[in-house]
Amino acid sequence: MRTITVCLLTIIAEGVLEERLLTMIQQFGARGYTISEVRGKGTRGVSGSFWQGSQIKIETLVSDKVADEIFGHLAEHYFHDYAVVAYTDHVETVRGEKYL
Amino acid sequence: MRTITVCLLTIIAEGVLEERLLTMIQQFGARGYTISEVRGKGTRGVSGSFWQGSQIKIETLVSDKVADEIFGHLAEHYFHDYAVVAYTDHVETVRGEKYL
Amino acid sequence: MRTITVCLLTIIAEGVLEERLLTMIQQFGARGYTISEVRGKGTRGVSGSFWQGSQIKIETLVSDKVADEIFGHLAEHYFHDYAVVAYTDHVETVRGEKYL
Repeated sequence: MRTITVCLLTIIAEGVLEERLLTMIQQFGARGYTISEVRGKGTRGVSGSFWQGSQIKIETLVSDKVADEIFGHLAEHYFHDYAVVAYTDHVETVRGEKYL
Repeated sequence: MRTITVCLLTIIAEGVLEERLLTMIQQFGARGYTISEVRGKGTRGVSGSFWQGSQIKIETLVSDKVADEIFGHLAEHYFHDYAVVAYTDHVETVRGEKYL
Repeated sequence: MRTITVCLLTIIAEGVLEERLLTMIQQFGARGYTISEVRGKGTRGVSGSFWQGSQIKIETLVSDKVADEIFGHLAEHYFHDYAVVAYTDHVETVRGEKYL
């Protein structure tokens, strides 16, 4: 099968941020997403304060450009105060043009 | 540790397709799988009609050949009518020979 | 955005191992983790005996060195007897220095 390389963007955050984050990624161009309920442990914001509890994991297939813009938005508006983890990876997909 | 590169195949689909998809991936050679309950939003099939709701995420470690054959089967039998997302990535695993 | 490449380590195991595995990965240097409840099917240990049921998926962002040490520990203490799957992938993250 002919495949296309797209960017899989993962955002892990407190559940209270769900609506804001979903609205934001769609404004930047994400055309779909998947949400998983997860639990976790980590550090929050610049204070590095410890947190532990329920979170959501948002996954979306986007272009590199959209992923980069979402990273920039997260850095400006979320990373300082919230327990948000975000990372990207390249995956191979069929029907990749759906996501770009 | 010595690791082996294998293909991590992810399929996201409506829950009603679970049994059919699990039977199919095993017929093509998948020796195990993991299923997560997720929620999502996207477009369905060629109509591009909007959907939103519960889905399952199936993950399986397979050879590149098996992943390609499953992609082909999904394209022929599912992509036209269903809200199915599928993508692959290469990961490093120990005991990779279990999956090939 | 400037990103840093880190290792995303995934461990899938029986739920009864949760506390032991979380303690272990933190002893090796993991600073946070995410847990998902999943279901799966595969083979267990050297016997290759079949299993099917509930499992947990642990994901953590670590350095390559930490991932390799955890792989070594899993191989020595878990792979022989338990249904444990582990794999790594490289992902791009902002604030990657948090995880190293």
